[in-house]
Amino acid sequence: MKVEQLGEIGLIERIVKRFHVNKQIVTVGAGEDDCAVIDIDKAKGGYKYLVVTTDAVQESTHFPAGISAFQIGWTSVAVNLSDIAAMGAHPFAFMVAMGIPAHTETSFMDEVVEGIEKCASVYNTAVVGGDITRSKELSLTGTCFGFADKPVRRAGAEVGDRVCVTGSLGNAALAMKIIEEGEEIKVPEKAEEVAKKALFQPVPRIQEGVILADSGSVTSMIDISDGLALSLAELAKSSTVGFEIYEDKVPLFNDGIRNAEGLDLSKLGFEPREFAFYFGGDYELLFTINMKGDRKDAELLKGIQKEVKMSIIGKVVPPEEGIYFKTGEEKEMMEIKGYQHF
Amino acid sequence: MKVEQLGEIGLIERIVKRFHVNKQIVTVGAGEDDCAVIDIDKAKGGYKYLVVTTDAVQESTHFPAGISAFQIGWTSVAVNLSDIAAMGAHPFAFMVAMGIPAHTETSFMDEVVEGIEKCASVYNTAVVGGDITRSKELSLTGTCFGFADKPVRRAGAEVGDRVCVTGSLGNAALAMKIIEEGEEIKVPEKAEEVAKKALFQPVPRIQEGVILADSGSVTSMIDISDGLALSLAELAKSSTVGFEIYEDKVPLFNDGIRNAEGLDLSKLGFEPREFAFYFGGDYELLFTINMKGDRKDAELLKGIQKEVKMSIIGKVVPPEEGIYFKTGEEKEMMEIKGYQHF
Repeated sequence: MKVEQLGEIGLIERIVKRFHVNKQIVTVGAGEDDCAVIDIDKAKGGYKYLVVTTDAVQESTHFPAGISAFQIGWTSVAVNLSDIAAMGAHPFAFMVAMGIPAHTETSFMDEVVEGIEKCASVYNTAVVGGDITRSKELSLTGTCFGFADKPVRRAGAEVGDRVCVTGSLGNAALAMKIIEEGEEIKVPEKAEEVAKKALFQPVPRIQEGVILADSGSVTSMIDISDGLALSLAELAKSSTVGFEIYEDKVPLFNDGIRNAEGLDLSKLGFEPREFAFYFGGDYELLFTINMKGDRKDAELLKGIQKEVKMSIIGKVVPPEEGIYFKTGEEKEMMEIKGYQHF
Repeated sequence: MKVEQLGEIGLIERIVKRFHVNKQIVTVGAGEDDCAVIDIDKAKGGYKYLVVTTDAVQESTHFPAGISAFQIGWTSVAVNLSDIAAMGAHPFAFMVAMGIPAHTETSFMDEVVEGIEKCASVYNTAVVGGDITRSKELSLTGTCFGFADKPVRRAGAEVGDRVCVTGSLGNAALAMKIIEEGEEIKVPEKAEEVAKKALFQPVPRIQEGVILADSGSVTSMIDISDGLALSLAELAKSSTVGFEIYEDKVPLFNDGIRNAEGLDLSKLGFEPREFAFYFGGDYELLFTINMKGDRKDAELLKGIQKEVKMSIIGKVVPPEEGIYFKTGEEKEMMEIKGYQHF
């Protein structure tokens, strides 16, 4: 059945029954009224700040060949959660406005909705409302709400701080290269699978963001959505600092790809730098840590590293030095480019 | 200059400097970080509930011929504020995700942004964030935040309550007929101008919604976005009631249209019912008032009527009676139809 056969009211009813909310906090949820109604004191649980973000994904710009309907729904939530993570906040509610072409199969939309509900619920987030309109291409605009006491800003990095990233970079880029180049790239099946999972179903670093914010040592933070180079540039601009980056410390590819039998990174035909710095889709966190080098700080860093998979990739330098790669005694200015919508 | 020449970062900088926020409440606003950060205790000002809605408008579905860029921006805020009004809530913040075709003129986007800022600021609402993506057609997805102590639900109407609407209906419908039929419809220039203003630049009934909610007598409320018939049906379903409607009490067209010299309603070539019941775009409030007929209730109603331009158009009946027009002793079941996206 097509969406246009089901009708607007039928489609809304079909969608909203898939969403589960905590009725103690969400007094009025999706499909029930003109607005969602949230008991603000119960929801905030003692936190001081409401943090909110909106992010849209759409067919022509964001959906790589091979992505499933479930993963499209998942992604629309994950990209918003990633912004919440970058503030070190606790997400609690999500709204989604869907632009749907009339000829879309209802079963396809069911899977999109399943992906939305799954990603939201994994991160303790209730889908509390939304909107549907007929549109030329499929688009999903999410709005995500969280709470925090001390949101970690982009501004705050100071000279001497260490520059760090969570997880690993370049996974989504590898998948895009495989999709774009096809047979040209020789990659073991297992590595291809892992890379595509990273591209199609990004993991927002919610838990990591909260731990980092709670540590009290993180001075600035941003999520890496359009490549490490652009995120470094944003952070540098907001904090009025420069960065010295050790390229060989940047964690390229996750274990699933690195350990895939038969993978020869040198035969990919691309500089590793291309994957980690100039391509988007990784949704890891880039952050700076205050680290003056005394024993207390070292202990704290060890504590964080026990809970968060992270790498130290550089240090904060004065703004006039800019952003550069350092290898031995050699400095090379970093090109600032990455994914831009326009 | 085209948007694609300006680039994403340039476009964001250009947009965000047009938005003005109260820095005491909005700690981090549009363009500043991964999320907007709102001091929740200062913002809520003692209210208990956060109410939130999201609504998208897009070129192919929502922009009638002749609408200006400013009015497109205005509308994207107004349709969201209308949902906030329908809960009787106080709006305070707004976010907007814009899908923009690459060849859009930056001056066009400037006017869209001007319309967004103007409508938001008129209703004391701060634009706190957003997103831009490249898309095939212009689309604006807004999310609006408000606070309320006793949000007025769609459920709550009881048998015997009076059914009321704010303002007047059919204005947007008249403009659409003029646009669609062109020379076929004979309407004085002044009336055409007023009707088009109603269609292109809808007025959200924020103040009215708050007064009605504060009265304590309003038992249910909804905004009329897709025609009176569909809104009556939604309210009837949510409250499990029926409605008796007096068609001649429904306020058709505003004074600007009614008083236009040379207007002959009988020559429009459409039943008045078509304009008021089966066409959307009016954004008035439909609500029920508890009114048992004693003197105290009558006084209260008078008090509300002094502050809110409203009409009593019917009464609430048991659900098994359905929704019908009553003229003298005659009953006629109401057809339930209106604007539906699918």
